[in-house]
Amino acid sequence: MFQTERRFLRLLFLLCILHYEAGQVFGVWPMPQQITQSTDRYLLSPQSFSFSYSKDSAAQSGCSVLDSAFKRYYSLIFPDAADGARLESFSQLVYQDKYNMYFVNKTEIQDFPRFEFRGLLLDTSRHYLPLNAILKTLDAMAYSKFNVFHWHIVDDPSFPYQSYSYPDLSSKGAFHPMTHIYTQSDVKRVISHARMRGIRVIPEFDTPGHTQSWGKGQPNLLTPCYKGDVPSGTFGPVNPILDSTYQFMSGLFKEMKSVFPDSYVHLGGDEVNFACWKSNPNVRAFMTKMGFGHDYTKLESYYIENIVNISSALNKTPIVWQDVFDYRERIPKDTVLEIWKGVPADYRTELAKITHAGYRVLLSAPWYINHISYGQDWRNSYTVQPQNFSGTDQQKALVIGGEVCMWGEYVDATNLHPRLWPRACAAAERLWSNEEMTSNVDQAFPRLEKFRCSLIRRGIQAEPLFVGYCKDEYRGV
Amino acid sequence: MFQTERRFLRLLFLLCILHYEAGQVFGVWPMPQQITQSTDRYLLSPQSFSFSYSKDSAAQSGCSVLDSAFKRYYSLIFPDAADGARLESFSQLVYQDKYNMYFVNKTEIQDFPRFEFRGLLLDTSRHYLPLNAILKTLDAMAYSKFNVFHWHIVDDPSFPYQSYSYPDLSSKGAFHPMTHIYTQSDVKRVISHARMRGIRVIPEFDTPGHTQSWGKGQPNLLTPCYKGDVPSGTFGPVNPILDSTYQFMSGLFKEMKSVFPDSYVHLGGDEVNFACWKSNPNVRAFMTKMGFGHDYTKLESYYIENIVNISSALNKTPIVWQDVFDYRERIPKDTVLEIWKGVPADYRTELAKITHAGYRVLLSAPWYINHISYGQDWRNSYTVQPQNFSGTDQQKALVIGGEVCMWGEYVDATNLHPRLWPRACAAAERLWSNEEMTSNVDQAFPRLEKFRCSLIRRGIQAEPLFVGYCKDEYRGV
Repeated sequence: MFQTERRFLRLLFLLCILHYEAGQVFGVWPMPQQITQSTDRYLLSPQSFSFSYSKDSAAQSGCSVLDSAFKRYYSLIFPDAADGARLESFSQLVYQDKYNMYFVNKTEIQDFPRFEFRGLLLDTSRHYLPLNAILKTLDAMAYSKFNVFHWHIVDDPSFPYQSYSYPDLSSKGAFHPMTHIYTQSDVKRVISHARMRGIRVIPEFDTPGHTQSWGKGQPNLLTPCYKGDVPSGTFGPVNPILDSTYQFMSGLFKEMKSVFPDSYVHLGGDEVNFACWKSNPNVRAFMTKMGFGHDYTKLESYYIENIVNISSALNKTPIVWQDVFDYRERIPKDTVLEIWKGVPADYRTELAKITHAGYRVLLSAPWYINHISYGQDWRNSYTVQPQNFSGTDQQKALVIGGEVCMWGEYVDATNLHPRLWPRACAAAERLWSNEEMTSNVDQAFPRLEKFRCSLIRRGIQAEPLFVGYCKDEYRGV
Repeated sequence: MFQTERRFLRLLFLLCILHYEAGQVFGVWPMPQQITQSTDRYLLSPQSFSFSYSKDSAAQSGCSVLDSAFKRYYSLIFPDAADGARLESFSQLVYQDKYNMYFVNKTEIQDFPRFEFRGLLLDTSRHYLPLNAILKTLDAMAYSKFNVFHWHIVDDPSFPYQSYSYPDLSSKGAFHPMTHIYTQSDVKRVISHARMRGIRVIPEFDTPGHTQSWGKGQPNLLTPCYKGDVPSGTFGPVNPILDSTYQFMSGLFKEMKSVFPDSYVHLGGDEVNFACWKSNPNVRAFMTKMGFGHDYTKLESYYIENIVNISSALNKTPIVWQDVFDYRERIPKDTVLEIWKGVPADYRTELAKITHAGYRVLLSAPWYINHISYGQDWRNSYTVQPQNFSGTDQQKALVIGGEVCMWGEYVDATNLHPRLWPRACAAAERLWSNEEMTSNVDQAFPRLEKFRCSLIRRGIQAEPLFVGYCKDEYRGV
């Protein structure tokens, strides 16, 4: 998927244009790698405008992704007239004068993404997000050139994924077995909507922690916690000592392979609380048998290695949270580590360590966008420098991108969109654009303000950056 | 208007009920002064249910506010079946079982508001709020028993109020002269929508500061600032030394009187920057002539006294920000001071001072709800104690209420509702309910969670308090 991005560049826009008087110069978000603008402008006629394929393009008519993108972007550009990534930049360059005539200024763009992996995480377990909220997020992601939807689909509070192999997982583990689930058809719709926008969908089935909701529909999966010599009635992480656990996980991941076509799968592996394992006499006996002593990180490693092997056998490339590296599991070299902890000093140290060990890495720590504060906190996201750590050029090349994470403790469909947009756009530009061309946050401000108004015009509930207005305000109240 | 609230209590709900098996016990937000609930429950039939007036009620059929409230609350209670403050409590007590039958538990309520003034401020100058966003806010205010809409309608950035006496104020001072204004018809609609929900509308025309947008449509109103001996081309606060200023203000307030029926008017008076006045030689000459020396607070006092007298002559009761008291203007004793500054120690001192001087007071300082932080910040709003300051009972009685303020620097229609709701409900309960019955924030939590789901069901985009779900999630995405 990443390779085709450059091919799109060669598309020819057959513009039916009239050379016209000089007009205003426009920005594009995220900033293209090279852009040369002129005040020469061309009048566009919605009646005769069309997109077409360049003769030397690898893609030709019949390419469903581009064919549908042409149609979609036509109505984004000319909303009055009717009902891909380069298309996005072009669409941002078209403007209307006060007589509602359409113009584009003479512009040359050379563009490609700085990082191949530009992700956004939604958490559908702490609150259920209706399908439309996810689809709309995908729309806005495409506008900002994000290309990975990291679907943190299940977690402790609820299990909304309706599995065909293990239907009890959602019928007992979702907030509601009918209204708060994602059916197979819903998942297909998300994947297809994303694919049409150049976005890959990577599901996360986080284990062995963050699995309380799994236990409701899958007996004997979670570790029974003990109080003294007797079970307390509560449960801890996935039980790593039973063969049945690995049989179940193997079955679930086989289903994942058939449902989610992407080559990556996110296995989680974060925040495992060892207290319950320590309380359980069978787990303690297993520790002794395996020679792990009292080091429960070894038990966690043992579990994760098994899960990684299951996913590798299915030809999936695993992504895991940084905890897995910190515990020194023996994991395949193609595993991607995702850094989520700490302040810049912490994540820079972690970037150096993980890349020194030869692993590819994703940065999320500075982009926990669920955290909010008063004022223009997008500025903090914008000034992140993902490759600013001690390391060789080879190490820096192992930073394949980053992710904006919208965890769901305080977020559902009521506030998702205004919290995401335009705040997430700051990371989108950091991940797409040349760092030197986008080093000045004050220069970015008016361009982002304008982009935010474009998002509003396209129906995205993007909140304001500061005092002011958009020509077309949000009316969906 | 406040008096009628107690009369509403005596309304008889002619419930066509069947005594039925015991059911669940429900909360009401804000907490009524007295509530006795039973597990006895009555089945309600949407087909035969009706509201009617008690024979000894002061209000009788033909009272437009109650007649329309009956109709409105009927569909809030029975949304499946078809298309007033006591009505609100009653509506929150009706619930459906799993067969969608409607029930109400046997309940006795005695209720009245703790404070007569329960306000919410919207700022329509820093961002323009479309009419629908205001009307929807009024709906949600009624659900929480707020009874004052403080319309901070104009300020520095824009002047959206379309005045019939001075049309240039909005045609030159609004963000856009046609799309970003409130016409006379819009204002009438807001006042009527509010009145039907027991909400008074108090406009604020803040002067002499916060008036940059006024200057565009009203030449010679603002003070020309000087750089040395020459005008710098910029303007400061309203010019307090010209007769024309007071003629204009008098004309504008006459119009206000005809447009806004409420007996209160908010005159502003906050944050006046003296630098421009000091720079202007004519202002300095006026200071000397009036014997004000170099004390520009005396000039501000002079201005405010004139404005207060203009509004008093129109039989309007003025509300002003605390700055006016701090500057020791000679203002009529019926003026209400609104406290907006500082941490609890500051506003408690101010409460003591202002009430000691015999003035009525409104508290806003702890309820600047535009300020956001990560997590459950409604808890801070909830634990405010408006009468907890050093003073006599007579002084405490001068605290007539408070206001939630939603300033518009970072807020427009895209994020207004989820920032307001349910966070503003915390102040609503503090202003309505008995303090002792609502002193425990943890006990309030599940009741507020339930109320938030009611708001969602009624179409208010109320954000979540924490992990969980509502039976009916927000679908307007």
